[in-house]
Amino acid sequence: MSPSAPTEQHPAHSLAFLEDDANGLRVPVTEIALDDSPDGSPNAPLRVYRTAGPGSDPVIGLAPYRAGWIEERGDTEAYEGRARNLLDDGRSAQRRGAPSAEWRGARPAPRRARNGRRVTQMHYARRGVVTPEMRYVALREGCDVELVRSEVAAGRAIIPSNINHPESEPMIIGRAFLVKINANIGNSAVTSSIAEEVDKLQWATKWGADTVMDLSTGDDIHTTREWIIRNSPVPIGTVPIYQALEKVSGDASALTWEVFRDTVVEQCEQGVDYMTIHAGVLLRYVPLTADRVTGIVSRGGSIMAGWCLAHHQENFLYTHFDELCEIFAQYDVAFSLGDGLRPGSTADANDAAQFTELDTLAELTKRAWEYDVQVMVEGPGHIPFHLVRENVERQQELCDGAPFYTLGPLVTDVAPGYDHITSAIGATEIARYGTAMLCYVTPKEHLGLPNKDDVKTGVITYKIAAHAADLAKGHPGAHERDDALSKARFEFRWRDQFSLSLDPATAEAFHDETLPAEPAKTAHFCSMCGPKFCSMRISQDIRNEFGSKQAQEAIAGIAEGMKQKSAEFVARGGKVYLPETITVGTPD
Amino acid sequence: MSPSAPTEQHPAHSLAFLEDDANGLRVPVTEIALDDSPDGSPNAPLRVYRTAGPGSDPVIGLAPYRAGWIEERGDTEAYEGRARNLLDDGRSAQRRGAPSAEWRGARPAPRRARNGRRVTQMHYARRGVVTPEMRYVALREGCDVELVRSEVAAGRAIIPSNINHPESEPMIIGRAFLVKINANIGNSAVTSSIAEEVDKLQWATKWGADTVMDLSTGDDIHTTREWIIRNSPVPIGTVPIYQALEKVSGDASALTWEVFRDTVVEQCEQGVDYMTIHAGVLLRYVPLTADRVTGIVSRGGSIMAGWCLAHHQENFLYTHFDELCEIFAQYDVAFSLGDGLRPGSTADANDAAQFTELDTLAELTKRAWEYDVQVMVEGPGHIPFHLVRENVERQQELCDGAPFYTLGPLVTDVAPGYDHITSAIGATEIARYGTAMLCYVTPKEHLGLPNKDDVKTGVITYKIAAHAADLAKGHPGAHERDDALSKARFEFRWRDQFSLSLDPATAEAFHDETLPAEPAKTAHFCSMCGPKFCSMRISQDIRNEFGSKQAQEAIAGIAEGMKQKSAEFVARGGKVYLPETITVGTPD
Repeated sequence: MSPSAPTEQHPAHSLAFLEDDANGLRVPVTEIALDDSPDGSPNAPLRVYRTAGPGSDPVIGLAPYRAGWIEERGDTEAYEGRARNLLDDGRSAQRRGAPSAEWRGARPAPRRARNGRRVTQMHYARRGVVTPEMRYVALREGCDVELVRSEVAAGRAIIPSNINHPESEPMIIGRAFLVKINANIGNSAVTSSIAEEVDKLQWATKWGADTVMDLSTGDDIHTTREWIIRNSPVPIGTVPIYQALEKVSGDASALTWEVFRDTVVEQCEQGVDYMTIHAGVLLRYVPLTADRVTGIVSRGGSIMAGWCLAHHQENFLYTHFDELCEIFAQYDVAFSLGDGLRPGSTADANDAAQFTELDTLAELTKRAWEYDVQVMVEGPGHIPFHLVRENVERQQELCDGAPFYTLGPLVTDVAPGYDHITSAIGATEIARYGTAMLCYVTPKEHLGLPNKDDVKTGVITYKIAAHAADLAKGHPGAHERDDALSKARFEFRWRDQFSLSLDPATAEAFHDETLPAEPAKTAHFCSMCGPKFCSMRISQDIRNEFGSKQAQEAIAGIAEGMKQKSAEFVARGGKVYLPETITVGTPD
Repeated sequence: MSPSAPTEQHPAHSLAFLEDDANGLRVPVTEIALDDSPDGSPNAPLRVYRTAGPGSDPVIGLAPYRAGWIEERGDTEAYEGRARNLLDDGRSAQRRGAPSAEWRGARPAPRRARNGRRVTQMHYARRGVVTPEMRYVALREGCDVELVRSEVAAGRAIIPSNINHPESEPMIIGRAFLVKINANIGNSAVTSSIAEEVDKLQWATKWGADTVMDLSTGDDIHTTREWIIRNSPVPIGTVPIYQALEKVSGDASALTWEVFRDTVVEQCEQGVDYMTIHAGVLLRYVPLTADRVTGIVSRGGSIMAGWCLAHHQENFLYTHFDELCEIFAQYDVAFSLGDGLRPGSTADANDAAQFTELDTLAELTKRAWEYDVQVMVEGPGHIPFHLVRENVERQQELCDGAPFYTLGPLVTDVAPGYDHITSAIGATEIARYGTAMLCYVTPKEHLGLPNKDDVKTGVITYKIAAHAADLAKGHPGAHERDDALSKARFEFRWRDQFSLSLDPATAEAFHDETLPAEPAKTAHFCSMCGPKFCSMRISQDIRNEFGSKQAQEAIAGIAEGMKQKSAEFVARGGKVYLPETITVGTPD
């Protein structure tokens, strides 16, 4: 279904920039060149949001775009950082005495807040300070910078931007802005190397991933992450409990706050922009899952539930939450509050376990805000379509508008192999009502490990859901690409149809399956109706016959002009022809 | 994405029957055998709705299942029928003196209503008569037969069942029943033979198509349809204007009511169950499309618009509508009132052209009901997500609940190559609010001719949309398959997960890509977390530790039992292990 597209740019796509000369900012966009209309009138190129970044040689990484901004604020200091520990890369690295492919690019000393300072975007936004990150985002979103500042100040949007990830291009996650999507990558001991993970990162951002989560849980976890962050133009998220669990040989009951804290600091210093923290899985909530059809399906959630049960103690992520806030505030790491008790089946949707945990996530959201730490809240999961809306409305109300970040939700459980689709349906619905970011689901969900094609299919499917929600929300400018593509379609500008689509190579390949000849791409017909008969052509005849004014007269019943036009239509040989090629397309 | 599955049944699937001994009826269903749960308790086999029919040798066709019922009503008569005309098969058949593969199976004389009789299901329903077709449908849907009768009587549901298509298994289309899907097939002069079309029919119904439209527009159109109908266990729909246009050499302005009428009678005698009729495209509506981004995109709509303009006369389908009703009433052919002015882009959605035509379709619906003719109304097309609901609610109100039958709608125009997905999102939304049948869209929509894989992808995607809507509507029993699959997932019954899914072969193939070994299908883990650590397993531990009653006590704060359980958990070695295989799946 998804033939691989080359990583090179599409011929009609070029890198362009939105400029803010006054502030010395430029935001990369993809400019799509368009052909003239058949009547000779030009079509202005369309500029679209771009996540691909400037591209990097993996062994060198990206330039530290934001380094100057961070330095100029004067609120951070470089420091020696936590000592390198080979266990960060797992037991086999320890045995070997080295990870399998040590990062060899630049290794500047990590930065943290100066003593007593808070360095988060939220901190500045609340004090009324507009940062370069906020200006960049405003330019990128095409909105007023005051909207950016005020939404970040209110906690209704976040700009994930660890000061140790200066390579990232600032982006914003919040309901007032374009809906964003996240793609998951991560190494596999069996099938993938560090180079492959960097390749997946670049592949995912090429197709439109706004953030990427590195869910590695195997060997070389520290080093893989280093390569990913140094090459990532988008914010990177992680689930630090996965690495912490590695450090205690996979025995959840052996986890301690100290091991976890050390892992978080390690990741803060590397530049992770947001971290999933399952602090809402409280001991007393665990029994609420006992009668579920599918129990606890979140890995992080089940790790913490297992720990709570083994120790009969409260979740250490909850009891040490303030300390986490203090750490995050020093690096501007954002919380992604994990929904460890999310439903794993439509049968378990919107139940007590899920909603009780959400109450706690709301409490934690406000606690983090006391430290000026940015927060988003994670959501399900598996929800029947009619119960989706309640999720986002409840979250928005309880969490005072903190951005919601959901996985799908899948609206049915009966289609493993197609869960990118079952979840895109729920994702569109939940984004329409205010979810700010959608975590993609690939066709392999529930079945196996996604390959590169699956990553692409997941990203494109989620771009569809996010964009459909932007249209439904009436987001300014969202319809421009649709309208440009529809106009190209009506005018048989085939090349423009391809280049305006989310996946030009696939659109072109599908077209060529039926009509491979090169002239067919400039022909004023398609394989649906063939060259002689074409409904689009008839419509163009109609438009040629009726100007807008006459159309109005005709509606008013003044049919005299129509009669005349009709005679002219016939006189000019206005005929409608039989299709020569035949179709199984649209029914009428 | 969709590896071809064999046409043979899945090993765990078997043909079973719902029996109504009192009335001598049996309805085929697919029975899915399930393994025992790990604790040894059995799982009852699940019976699911089946559209595949009993299977047929294409050259012989299916047995005339309903022939006895039709005969027994005594309201019809066999007659000589319209004379065979080689032009029915196009100009090349005329030149050759024969179609390329004449139907050689049984050719009973066609039947029609005895003089002055109406033979439609609506006619009987309105008179309070329960037909075998209604009983069959009630058994199939698992509902009271009175619901079936009363909904058909009220026009809120139809049972498409041409008396000349006795091979069909009765099914119902209406908002009170399971949401149905239609698949389009049809010959192509370039690429496909009659045998291939029969194969596509069987393929589409194997995957779940509830009705099939034959949109052939090329050579051998009459004969292709004969083969399709004689082999079809589901109702067949057509767009007769396509064939009529062939008969006038593709010149729409040369179309006449007489040619059209003759074509309709030809198709009635063959057994077409419903026909798309573009009688709502009125002359005065045509100018309303002049300012659209994409004008008229319906082929039937543009043919009639072209005809109206060329003649400056009112659409002959509208002016002869009563005559059409009289014909349809003689064979029990249902109207599918075509939306010839439907929007072809999200920019044109819900505009005056579309909604004015709908007013006329509502008028025609009621006119058809005066003849006891069954009616459904076709709908769009391309609609942004937030405007979808208005379409079905408006149609339901204006048309007094006549079944709505929509194409998608697509909720964005930016993803050619993925329009099965863009449209499934809209389809779920529109079905949730009452659309009764969804016409599938394949990945090739707007680009080319769907191949067999595309047909399958389209059908499965639309089964997802229809089923998600059934769940959202709270349709009784709809959740059973979801719950059975979720339970199988939780219990690591991999084979049951595959066999319960809409596409077992694809689910299994995806699983095997990562863990191909046979034992992995019975293993109590998956590739997501690996054999040692597994969130599902932890959940099962939790369930084992907490009975439902104790869970309640724990919620109430009675934690003493928990403390004890916790100690037991640790004492028994309740540990949580590190994943050995690693994943890029779900974020937490």
